[in-house]
Amino acid sequence: MTPFFKKLFPIIFKYIEENIQQDTPVVHFETHDVLKSQLNLAIGEEGVSVDELLMFIENQYLKYSVRTGHRQFFNQLFGGFSSVGFLGDVVTSLTNTSMYTYEVAPVAALLEKEVLNKMLSLVGFKHGDGTFVTGGSNANYMALLCARNKTDPTIKKRGFANSALVLFVSDQAHYSFERAADLLGIGSNNLVKIKTDNNGQMMVDELNKEIVRHLEQGKKPFFVAATAGTTVLGAFDPIDEIAQLAKQYDMWFHIDGAFGASVLLSRQHKYLLDGSELADSLTWDAHKMMGATLMCSAFLIKEPNFLKQTCAVGGTEYLYHDEDECYDLGQISLQCGRRVDVLKLWLLWKHYGDRGYEACIDHVFELAKYANQQVAEHPNLELMTPTQSLNICFRYRPNSQTDINTFNLALREQLRRSGKTLVNYAIIKGNVVIRLVIVNFELSKTDIDTFFANVLSVAKTLS
Amino acid sequence: MTPFFKKLFPIIFKYIEENIQQDTPVVHFETHDVLKSQLNLAIGEEGVSVDELLMFIENQYLKYSVRTGHRQFFNQLFGGFSSVGFLGDVVTSLTNTSMYTYEVAPVAALLEKEVLNKMLSLVGFKHGDGTFVTGGSNANYMALLCARNKTDPTIKKRGFANSALVLFVSDQAHYSFERAADLLGIGSNNLVKIKTDNNGQMMVDELNKEIVRHLEQGKKPFFVAATAGTTVLGAFDPIDEIAQLAKQYDMWFHIDGAFGASVLLSRQHKYLLDGSELADSLTWDAHKMMGATLMCSAFLIKEPNFLKQTCAVGGTEYLYHDEDECYDLGQISLQCGRRVDVLKLWLLWKHYGDRGYEACIDHVFELAKYANQQVAEHPNLELMTPTQSLNICFRYRPNSQTDINTFNLALREQLRRSGKTLVNYAIIKGNVVIRLVIVNFELSKTDIDTFFANVLSVAKTLS
Repeated sequence: MTPFFKKLFPIIFKYIEENIQQDTPVVHFETHDVLKSQLNLAIGEEGVSVDELLMFIENQYLKYSVRTGHRQFFNQLFGGFSSVGFLGDVVTSLTNTSMYTYEVAPVAALLEKEVLNKMLSLVGFKHGDGTFVTGGSNANYMALLCARNKTDPTIKKRGFANSALVLFVSDQAHYSFERAADLLGIGSNNLVKIKTDNNGQMMVDELNKEIVRHLEQGKKPFFVAATAGTTVLGAFDPIDEIAQLAKQYDMWFHIDGAFGASVLLSRQHKYLLDGSELADSLTWDAHKMMGATLMCSAFLIKEPNFLKQTCAVGGTEYLYHDEDECYDLGQISLQCGRRVDVLKLWLLWKHYGDRGYEACIDHVFELAKYANQQVAEHPNLELMTPTQSLNICFRYRPNSQTDINTFNLALREQLRRSGKTLVNYAIIKGNVVIRLVIVNFELSKTDIDTFFANVLSVAKTLS
Repeated sequence: MTPFFKKLFPIIFKYIEENIQQDTPVVHFETHDVLKSQLNLAIGEEGVSVDELLMFIENQYLKYSVRTGHRQFFNQLFGGFSSVGFLGDVVTSLTNTSMYTYEVAPVAALLEKEVLNKMLSLVGFKHGDGTFVTGGSNANYMALLCARNKTDPTIKKRGFANSALVLFVSDQAHYSFERAADLLGIGSNNLVKIKTDNNGQMMVDELNKEIVRHLEQGKKPFFVAATAGTTVLGAFDPIDEIAQLAKQYDMWFHIDGAFGASVLLSRQHKYLLDGSELADSLTWDAHKMMGATLMCSAFLIKEPNFLKQTCAVGGTEYLYHDEDECYDLGQISLQCGRRVDVLKLWLLWKHYGDRGYEACIDHVFELAKYANQQVAEHPNLELMTPTQSLNICFRYRPNSQTDINTFNLALREQLRRSGKTLVNYAIIKGNVVIRLVIVNFELSKTDIDTFFANVLSVAKTLS
């Protein structure tokens, strides 16, 4: 082995080991001004040695980066570290290629088709199609694009003229729908946010009312998205009922399962997506509940060939030759160059098997239930909404007279700065809530206990 | 070290060593039917061991993947293998995070700003802004989006109504412009392709004519893109002259430097982008001429704050809190979750230094000149267009009566299947041309000699 690799491998190994050691902080917090002054960021005229780079990695990059693989990282909808996923990423980088053609990505193209077919079958799109995309936002964007082109196939070439299109999502839906409406020329004003109930689920009677109201105004309702696993509350919209309205009013029906589609892997929890086969398309992020590294997102569509039609563009002959057409996956993608995101997912899935993934999903649901119970049983902790999947939204009720929002903001910031636990917050109906998300398969009840112990001990210092 | 890493590291190391061994094929070619039957693609109910995965990687994935780091890989606008870039990718995966907030990506956010500022300064955007994007196509898309919103700020929310917008690119420009016009609701019919001369450069008098013609038709010309390094010919459009017309007609001026912007690193070759500071925005792929692994693309814009305005959307409070605003880079991105693409580039740049990168760029230009000369000097090789940067477009003239296009298609396919050399082809004005692209910094004249020896020996067997 070259000296470079001899030095690199122990650094990697040490970092992974530290992730599970009790006294390792999840983040070595510094404000950006301080951090900037401590890092040697500037790139010079002359280069530096590989040894210096390795020192930067070890003493600066790894030191100050947030440990998303740490057992007290709960800050986003992803977390944990898997050697198998890491293997996929390393080999992807080693063989550095682009997904556009079978010619340069023969094995990866076959793997992508294999994984997509498995996802399609779980969703219930028997003859469907799909592609890996750049993220959940991008998958939602593609759904809206397909719906737009389905509704008016002339827009692709002619552009918009006096469009009356309106689309519907819940007020808990991801912001990517609003952005997509803007980008696609539909206009974000033409996105209608439907009220949700106390659980954060779309109220279907409200949806019906809004559709009727917009029809009366001469508008054309053409798209509705159900969210399967909302960002803050982890709520699942009622798919069957929304599907029925979509059918009745001839609208494209999309499911944003960026976070939640992975429950399809669990016989116990897949009921949350019952009716998925009624959708026209679906967003699925494997870098969230399936533990793959970022990015690993898929867009699935029921109608065969429509994706190809939607992505079709002239002037690609230099890249796409005829022979390998069905595996020249660039032809059903909005990207030209595209990283191989599938290998890590295929390896993980192959390693776990369907049953192993199921056990992982069931395990994190079990942990979420356990965390929910800890909140319910503690006199100072208040559950802000019933736990529906992996998100536990709660706050601390101080005994003192402090404003409760100010207190909880300070609590979570203090947790962050201490490096003990990283957990995010959101605002629900004017209330600051701490959003605990449990997606890391490696966690146990002890880690949840540690989390609450950290919360309570910091709260005590603030009271 | 765990047994897993003990087994993985030698596999990586062997693969890298094989890349530079003479008898290693650049691809072990199989048609997709055959390859599919040889791989154990299916994912079972039960999982498989990590050892089995490692065997799959070694004996199947690495065996059948195209070796883009091989010295006879000339097929795309990227190629080569760098340990430093690999280091960046490995650490990115190890610390798996998302670029959206300083909170979870503190060091990466600082690195991204550092690198973008360096790029902005090379381009000449003194107070500009920028973001890493999902690829060159996506960067071009963002340019068109910014221009659209600049021209009519109401479109973002209201959508289109009777748009008269038209945009101009050369007939050698990348297909992503046509796609972006479709996606953004402008309509791909409203993209006008300007004729190019024999070098593949946009003819500015033609551009002028087309602008005037469309104005007379009541259209609104609002966007023109110069290509700096076309995909097939490696041609650079006349930036100064196009900038002048853009100014005269009040149009957004974009430079698609996906391939060619990297020449800004070379004092000898940066004249090809003279006038870049006159542009409003620029696309720059560091995974092409800067040797980073895919993806590594930047979108740069001259006007400060416009990117933020363009990407602005409601409902992001759960993610973006106030304190770290200027380093919450998700706010100037169209993505929500986003991989850290900058670390590898920063490491490469830091390692080479400005002067080292310059030497690399100058070296590949030198090699391209050498390859050009080999074509010019051989009686059976015909240069199809003067070499302007790193693309040498040529064909073989057989002595036999075979159709010359059929012959060259067979020649390049035979090269591919032999595993000796992977080089792509394109069609220029009805002629099949072999497109040799030299972007791998590690190559020497010997590798170019080997390339032509392979071409000539396969041509001989076909004659």
